[in-house]
Amino acid sequence: MIALHDAVGRLSAALGGSPAAKLAASALVEADALGLPRFGIAMLDEWAADAAPVPETAGAQAVSWLDCSSCFAPLAVAGTTLDLAGTARQSGIAAVFLRGVRGFGRLVPFVRHLADTGLVGIAGAEGPPFVAPHGGTRPVIGTNPFALAMGRGSERVVIDIASSSATMADIKTARMTDAPLPDGIALDGAGRPTRVAADVAALLPRGGQIGSLLGLTVELLAGVAGAGRGDAKGRGVFILAFDPAAAGEGIDWQGKLAALKSDWTDGGGYWPRGGALAAGTMLDGDFAQRLDTHLARMAGQAGC
Amino acid sequence: MIALHDAVGRLSAALGGSPAAKLAASALVEADALGLPRFGIAMLDEWAADAAPVPETAGAQAVSWLDCSSCFAPLAVAGTTLDLAGTARQSGIAAVFLRGVRGFGRLVPFVRHLADTGLVGIAGAEGPPFVAPHGGTRPVIGTNPFALAMGRGSERVVIDIASSSATMADIKTARMTDAPLPDGIALDGAGRPTRVAADVAALLPRGGQIGSLLGLTVELLAGVAGAGRGDAKGRGVFILAFDPAAAGEGIDWQGKLAALKSDWTDGGGYWPRGGALAAGTMLDGDFAQRLDTHLARMAGQAGC
Repeated sequence: MIALHDAVGRLSAALGGSPAAKLAASALVEADALGLPRFGIAMLDEWAADAAPVPETAGAQAVSWLDCSSCFAPLAVAGTTLDLAGTARQSGIAAVFLRGVRGFGRLVPFVRHLADTGLVGIAGAEGPPFVAPHGGTRPVIGTNPFALAMGRGSERVVIDIASSSATMADIKTARMTDAPLPDGIALDGAGRPTRVAADVAALLPRGGQIGSLLGLTVELLAGVAGAGRGDAKGRGVFILAFDPAAAGEGIDWQGKLAALKSDWTDGGGYWPRGGALAAGTMLDGDFAQRLDTHLARMAGQAGC
Repeated sequence: MIALHDAVGRLSAALGGSPAAKLAASALVEADALGLPRFGIAMLDEWAADAAPVPETAGAQAVSWLDCSSCFAPLAVAGTTLDLAGTARQSGIAAVFLRGVRGFGRLVPFVRHLADTGLVGIAGAEGPPFVAPHGGTRPVIGTNPFALAMGRGSERVVIDIASSSATMADIKTARMTDAPLPDGIALDGAGRPTRVAADVAALLPRGGQIGSLLGLTVELLAGVAGAGRGDAKGRGVFILAFDPAAAGEGIDWQGKLAALKSDWTDGGGYWPRGGALAAGTMLDGDFAQRLDTHLARMAGQAGC
């Protein structure tokens, strides 16, 4: 067993102890604590002592593009998120487009960090083609998650949507158990609906046309405008932030947010919070052992 | 019968002949030509000769907030779109939040104008509560359309998504014919699914959870950050634009867009173009008569 806080502290130190290291460590450990180990410290497999530092843009441009293919992705996404917060506060609005991004975990911790600083944070990530367009037969885009966070405390809202109805990891799990898939989530190699995991050649968009168009939106931003599409070195990611306080005192966005939350939950809706954890959260012995192994490998490389 | 081009020219002149008048006129006439008269020149019912001009922000701020409740909404949205294009080109990225916006038609013509100028245009509009959250029982948010446009010519893409599976106008039409509604689009006053148009108290989100979260995203931007929510004088609208050319020559976003279009259509997907019309489009005699009536009323008021 290890406390969340201690795990984040140890990993943050191993990643260099910078604010970006702290945010990256926190993002990875949180995913394990939420039961999403695919997005957790498993990402450290890609860490190398000689990874490039996060590339800096010349000056604080409101919109910038960065090639992250030589970086350790969680640190690159964390570092650009921190830089973006400063630029958005200065300019009112800013965006960064990353390409060549390898495994970095979940988008949520990064947009939530922007919300912590009082900004509205929005992000999306494209990836390898697993998902067919609505009405289509072959995979064209990734599962293309989209995330948004704003507010703090009990009003905090964190939206986290995948554009597909399942992930390729779900399909791999189903392959191991031979369990039939739910209806309407996948196509076989001939473009026909299938419930047999071994036959899956494409995932279907979540909710039909609307999921298809949301996935296309993320692809257009992260893959086309951000140029991430088709880059074998990694994914395309965009992160956008703006400062609602720039509206001045005439606009009480926090009050509007609290009122919307109240209307939403009174109307029977679930107010999404993106899976935040309590401060005293503990991780199990298996996690602690995996963390030790990663830290030992990192210390060995760093000492060379 | 009247040619699209002539109708736009006459209406544009009646609205003052400015670039904003031309964009607003074109947006309204196009909706009628697409068979969407609810978003067309019917908006001119709200026109008044003494409507306030579009408020200007001090300087060209990258993010700004405008109260449009005293403006003729189509001109206000058109004018801010034109200003936004200039600011986005200068800053790389810019956004504007409008509140108190009365009927302005469709979002598509405005984001498409941004694409015409080489920018990526994104917009959303909140509105009166007709749609229940996923899993909920009462209406909380509007049908909250979202739109994105980028590219020109045959690669042009225009995304236009409503967050609900039907509109209140669809329900009103069904009330008149007594036809049963499709399954899964509406709830009655007790929060139960209904197919009886007369009993509809809430619409359901399109595609379940994903439509609910997209609708909430638009509400958070246009309604909360933009402060449009709950304003009896009109809707909240956000428009965002960024300049993909700011990435420099190293990034060929047009090439990436063409390749994505080709992959998307080869995979069986429909490439959304937002209902653009051919230049020689003609509108029928009923439209021509309605336009004449509006123009006569406008000329009468303007001459007072």
